[in-house]
Amino acid sequence: MSDSSERVDPALAAGNRRQLAGYAATHFRWETSGPVATITLNRPERKNPLTFESYAELRDLFGQLKYATDVRAIVIAGEGGNFCSGGDVHEIIGPLVRLKAPELLMFTRMTGDLVKAMRACPQPVIAAVDGVCAGAGAIIAMSSDLRLGTARSKTAFLFNRVGLAGCDMGACAILPRLIGQGRASELLYTGRALGGEEGERWGFFNRLCAPEALLAEAGKLALDLAQGPSFANGITKTMLHQEWAMTIEQAIEAEAQAQAVCMMTEDFRRAYEAFVAKQKPTFEGD
Amino acid sequence: MSDSSERVDPALAAGNRRQLAGYAATHFRWETSGPVATITLNRPERKNPLTFESYAELRDLFGQLKYATDVRAIVIAGEGGNFCSGGDVHEIIGPLVRLKAPELLMFTRMTGDLVKAMRACPQPVIAAVDGVCAGAGAIIAMSSDLRLGTARSKTAFLFNRVGLAGCDMGACAILPRLIGQGRASELLYTGRALGGEEGERWGFFNRLCAPEALLAEAGKLALDLAQGPSFANGITKTMLHQEWAMTIEQAIEAEAQAQAVCMMTEDFRRAYEAFVAKQKPTFEGD
Amino acid sequence: MSDSSERVDPALAAGNRRQLAGYAATHFRWETSGPVATITLNRPERKNPLTFESYAELRDLFGQLKYATDVRAIVIAGEGGNFCSGGDVHEIIGPLVRLKAPELLMFTRMTGDLVKAMRACPQPVIAAVDGVCAGAGAIIAMSSDLRLGTARSKTAFLFNRVGLAGCDMGACAILPRLIGQGRASELLYTGRALGGEEGERWGFFNRLCAPEALLAEAGKLALDLAQGPSFANGITKTMLHQEWAMTIEQAIEAEAQAQAVCMMTEDFRRAYEAFVAKQKPTFEGD
Repeated sequence: MSDSSERVDPALAAGNRRQLAGYAATHFRWETSGPVATITLNRPERKNPLTFESYAELRDLFGQLKYATDVRAIVIAGEGGNFCSGGDVHEIIGPLVRLKAPELLMFTRMTGDLVKAMRACPQPVIAAVDGVCAGAGAIIAMSSDLRLGTARSKTAFLFNRVGLAGCDMGACAILPRLIGQGRASELLYTGRALGGEEGERWGFFNRLCAPEALLAEAGKLALDLAQGPSFANGITKTMLHQEWAMTIEQAIEAEAQAQAVCMMTEDFRRAYEAFVAKQKPTFEGD
Repeated sequence: MSDSSERVDPALAAGNRRQLAGYAATHFRWETSGPVATITLNRPERKNPLTFESYAELRDLFGQLKYATDVRAIVIAGEGGNFCSGGDVHEIIGPLVRLKAPELLMFTRMTGDLVKAMRACPQPVIAAVDGVCAGAGAIIAMSSDLRLGTARSKTAFLFNRVGLAGCDMGACAILPRLIGQGRASELLYTGRALGGEEGERWGFFNRLCAPEALLAEAGKLALDLAQGPSFANGITKTMLHQEWAMTIEQAIEAEAQAQAVCMMTEDFRRAYEAFVAKQKPTFEGD
Repeated sequence: MSDSSERVDPALAAGNRRQLAGYAATHFRWETSGPVATITLNRPERKNPLTFESYAELRDLFGQLKYATDVRAIVIAGEGGNFCSGGDVHEIIGPLVRLKAPELLMFTRMTGDLVKAMRACPQPVIAAVDGVCAGAGAIIAMSSDLRLGTARSKTAFLFNRVGLAGCDMGACAILPRLIGQGRASELLYTGRALGGEEGERWGFFNRLCAPEALLAEAGKLALDLAQGPSFANGITKTMLHQEWAMTIEQAIEAEAQAQAVCMMTEDFRRAYEAFVAKQKPTFEGD
């Protein structure tokens, strides 16, 4: 029996948790402000395309966010008036044309793993979408929890324009649940761009912002969420994911268990005591 | 072999069916008018909160409605310009803060059982939502089959405001199917109130009514449904529930079986004969 | 070992594929124009009702479309300003009233098999809906991939008006995913007609057209899709269907596999090479 447990904080060690504020990103910008982290895709001269390397780093970073102690909400945005133009034609599509079947599957699984990691981390992810949001960019927006857009944003699931199917990284499952099966079918069959106002009307965007206010509004929404009961918010995210394909009976039992855990948190007690004292509760995420 | 079968109506005994019109409610008001029953939450001075006792009585009453012979549609409403303010802070939240894990699970399972019972009874349930509709009140509205609202209604899944997760009584499964995954995520993460017009636009409300006309319109809609083929309507409700997480192939086979049963009802024959006679059919629910 | 393989084109024989342009329809009109086929229900004096025979022929034709080499998109429409009035009262409902349980199940399974065949063929199906679209007509519209409507169209899932349940041919599963659970519940419980503008607002219709332009616009949309990467579009359709009741993790793995197949197509290479050459790609569906 080792006595190493005396030297570490068991509250962190039990969940293998650590800080991420100091993370040094290679293929995009990573900034933290209090409990909010912002990921900025920053190759604006090409409208922020993804490469094999940036896919992998995003996948790994979202994987680490599952264990972060200091990040409670995430904004993802693009630099220079565009969100993301998707997989780079020269750096991704060109090589893919020459790969063999097993190598292609390794690629599509890696990109799918990015979506899995985005859904598996407990932090709500807010996509701040301006300008071009295409291909894998549209997938990243779709896979976020909330989406703020601009009137001029153009979101295109344009896979069929490059000879591919609309079934990329979960789009045939997730997009229909956001905007309905018929509208999702249209976007996936035609590859046409969804405009900002149409996207708000269809429920793709939670709301539209002026381009110059987009980042600030996304940051404010993220901070609001981060100051909420972040453990409970993480459970909300988990259950929205878990209950995707359950029966209603299974979902109700799963929620009974999950909510009972939340009723044992300090945040629940804090909210009750604040209410009795006619004060605003201060949540701490435990 | 007993001869008791001679003394009972086998049409009722086979399904353990009985009348519910005379039910004497303790924790809310229960009224019947012909085939329509109305449940009115009636603690208007506190905006009609729920207590441990009213939760249990609602669960048990909806459980009995599964076997009712005389109730074919249900309206649920609140007294005094509000629908329901949710679990009472003093009578529910205070005690919960002090309960142990197994006791908390017994509570969350009981509240979930209310939703299960609302979905399992064959009668369509119409929520008539005015004013405050919060927490468990929002869940009751969500778990109804149809929702009439008012422009001034405020529906808030405010669980995260009290330090809890949005996964309460099936919300992470049911709300996304009503209004879309992105809009449901926003309501569950932020706890913000959904206004009446927004709620109609999003498909939460089937339509809005003037506050003074709300109850009458809900009653009229309930009567229209109750005068329809109530056995078949109950099958519609059952199948909307059953097919929640089936494949399309499974759903089509399940519907083939269920509709074949309906094609053997007297109501189907009545509708055909009325059509041939150029008359309006009178349905009897068998 | 036979040498018959020398006499057939293995690219066709491997999938048992054949041409359908010359198909001679008995109970409706079948026309092809290039890669687009149009099915026209053509008993306009009765608003294009279905009969036992036309149900069966539609089921069989969609079954054959799974193997067609020459049809890449399908339009389905009605003649004379109406789409389809559903099962003929005299030719279908009258006989059904007199059938026994096993015979009724054979009928409901046959109608369900039409929907299964519409979902199983790889071609996108575009319903062009004008005027009356009722009962089984509404189901055919619902089971199509895309729907163009007119402002004057009236789509009614009117099963409860004839004493039946709303669970017909998959409606309780598919309609909620198109327009949301609450709005679908209303249409299925009440049997009321959905107007064109309401249908567009709810996401049932992809867009509305002027009645005189409806067929041309449906044909143009079909041609646009047919000129796309039709193999990949068929995979999009397959995956929209396959992922209906999968978890997100399962859907992402399924899409990784399906998209990897598409990345090995000539169409993917053609799109890349066209992009590099700054040309518009010409897809060939292989």
